[in-house]
Amino acid sequence: MNGFELYNTTRLVFGEGKVNQLGELTKPFGQRVLLVYGGGSIKKSGLYDQVKQQLSLIGAIVQELSGIEPNPRLTTVNEGIRICREKDIQFILAVGGGSVIDAAKAIAAGALYDGDVWDFTIRKATITQALPIGTILTLAATGSEMNGGSVITNLETKQKRTMGSKLLYPKFSIVDPTLTFTVPVNQTVNGIIDIMSHVFEQYFSQTPSTPIQDRFAEGILLTVIENGEKAIANGNDYDSRANLLLSGTYAMNGILPIGVTADWATHVIEHEVSAIYDIPHGEGLSIFFPNWMKFVYKERIDKFVQFATRVWNVSPEGKTDDEIALEGIEATRSYFKRIGSPITLQEVGINDEHFERMADEATQFGDIGNFKKLSKEDVLSILKASL
Amino acid sequence: MNGFELYNTTRLVFGEGKVNQLGELTKPFGQRVLLVYGGGSIKKSGLYDQVKQQLSLIGAIVQELSGIEPNPRLTTVNEGIRICREKDIQFILAVGGGSVIDAAKAIAAGALYDGDVWDFTIRKATITQALPIGTILTLAATGSEMNGGSVITNLETKQKRTMGSKLLYPKFSIVDPTLTFTVPVNQTVNGIIDIMSHVFEQYFSQTPSTPIQDRFAEGILLTVIENGEKAIANGNDYDSRANLLLSGTYAMNGILPIGVTADWATHVIEHEVSAIYDIPHGEGLSIFFPNWMKFVYKERIDKFVQFATRVWNVSPEGKTDDEIALEGIEATRSYFKRIGSPITLQEVGINDEHFERMADEATQFGDIGNFKKLSKEDVLSILKASL
Repeated sequence: MNGFELYNTTRLVFGEGKVNQLGELTKPFGQRVLLVYGGGSIKKSGLYDQVKQQLSLIGAIVQELSGIEPNPRLTTVNEGIRICREKDIQFILAVGGGSVIDAAKAIAAGALYDGDVWDFTIRKATITQALPIGTILTLAATGSEMNGGSVITNLETKQKRTMGSKLLYPKFSIVDPTLTFTVPVNQTVNGIIDIMSHVFEQYFSQTPSTPIQDRFAEGILLTVIENGEKAIANGNDYDSRANLLLSGTYAMNGILPIGVTADWATHVIEHEVSAIYDIPHGEGLSIFFPNWMKFVYKERIDKFVQFATRVWNVSPEGKTDDEIALEGIEATRSYFKRIGSPITLQEVGINDEHFERMADEATQFGDIGNFKKLSKEDVLSILKASL
Repeated sequence: MNGFELYNTTRLVFGEGKVNQLGELTKPFGQRVLLVYGGGSIKKSGLYDQVKQQLSLIGAIVQELSGIEPNPRLTTVNEGIRICREKDIQFILAVGGGSVIDAAKAIAAGALYDGDVWDFTIRKATITQALPIGTILTLAATGSEMNGGSVITNLETKQKRTMGSKLLYPKFSIVDPTLTFTVPVNQTVNGIIDIMSHVFEQYFSQTPSTPIQDRFAEGILLTVIENGEKAIANGNDYDSRANLLLSGTYAMNGILPIGVTADWATHVIEHEVSAIYDIPHGEGLSIFFPNWMKFVYKERIDKFVQFATRVWNVSPEGKTDDEIALEGIEATRSYFKRIGSPITLQEVGINDEHFERMADEATQFGDIGNFKKLSKEDVLSILKASL
């Protein structure tokens, strides 16, 4: 196990009806609030009215930024920054899924920065201050509700990049499973893939002797696999929605990567593809992860054998390690397919036209990943295998 | 799953050599520091000198309170409170195991309270402010390094009682596995039992649909079972010491009880016994837990079947649920025995003389526990089964 620091300052408020604590949770941070959300779904569901009512209880003066995109855009973030400055905003409330929260984080950092917020993604500047944010989560997926990371897309340059800081941890996140009852099946599926992929990135590590991290990761995977299918079959099932939400939060709240060297190559590859084609993050991950696994599994076959037997219940009887590992990888792909996610680029209408550019961009800072260091040629191999 | 709040503000700094961050971690809290520790072991190991050197780097003015007992006493806590007031202490640094940290917490709360610190344990007063504390952990056991709880013993009244507050979370905790290399076998064993017992208290719950909490709990138990024996066999094995430490922290840092109704009856019973006899907490738990399990397992036999099969690898083939559950309970007892822990009261020189009083004290506020509510008569049954 490596040395590490675990320090997560987000207050997670979880359960049915917890939105009624929004007012008191927001109060300490000031009255000038920017409310950030996506499409109209929170208006249809009544959540918008509930939020406005809670904010009115504390006398908040609320500005709004709606229409945050699924891959949130730099232009939208800049619009939010403009409002923050103009209205002297004190607190940003994000109501939605990971994209809405990520946009809110970028706005929070950019509002107090005397420069272009994109600087944070290209490491030209470091985040040294940020407005406080709070969130109400409406989708089990990215885990952004309990970490300091944000992913923003620059449509002009067709780049999807990350920024992160301890200062971007939400002060609080309200997670009410009933708010996800109306999430459509395709978004539920993308969320499932996203959560499982986050676990994979941290689970497939070369770091020896990390039994707790391994068991926690496997526990989340087993929970998602079981509850994912239940939530798809019955969107109003409280327990499966709750278990998916908690899985999503834990997959990215910092308990899995402690003491391990995580990978993240597949996310880098996927970001290059969805920056160009604007496909949902979950679909890209669903296509690439089984192919990444197949490309790298021999680097530490014992880990893939463990994955196959503990997570997919593959019987090791009479099989070589190679066979067991491959069976686990195929079980992953089959599960993705079974829940209705694409497993080839063809299915989402992508051909090899931009492969060179994607591989170039993915490796612009050098080889990617840690489980196996991937060169540009390696990335091209994985892209081709994904056709 | 129940609703819950997860909010842990302790910064956990984990790994070899991390004590060299003590100065910078302490600096923000002020220069007048009270250093709290136990016997002379930190002087023998060189840790004391290292701590003093780090504190001198930031120009700290250090007062000392040493000799904290294994079951820390109210009189010692009061001595610490006296020093805090007299020297206008700004920060308390606890260097040691759970008892030292618990004492530091009680001192931190008592120093700013205009009354008897014991009030907090009998719920006569609530903690509304406390001095900040930091810790350097030297023993894998109580998890006190990452929570807001404290257990104090009043020798005068022979009572062992708890207090707790969000305000008592350590600001930081430094955990370096090499600092536990010199922990003697009996203390390592007591720590193992303590960690496993903490997991049991939260794992054996009637709350349905808590798959993540269950898997995490099982993951910690499997890790402790495996690494415990390794650490006993070779105290200088970094990885097993590291895995035990992380297990101890996770067992009590708030991730296991979220969304579940935990039990804690066995701890209540043990506290009454060790308040009178001053036996190590781990020994008491080792004796009582298997007997508690046997007394309650029929309340939710599926959970005990899950425990037996997942944690102790009991084969269910051709057995009734009852047989599987009992086999899991016996495996627990056998493990405790195998690592050298007592499993009967007789072994620690306790007879039935004070059983009535113990059962009375344990149930003074009513029935205890949640997996099965235990009356005074139930407690007596468990005590008798433990002879």
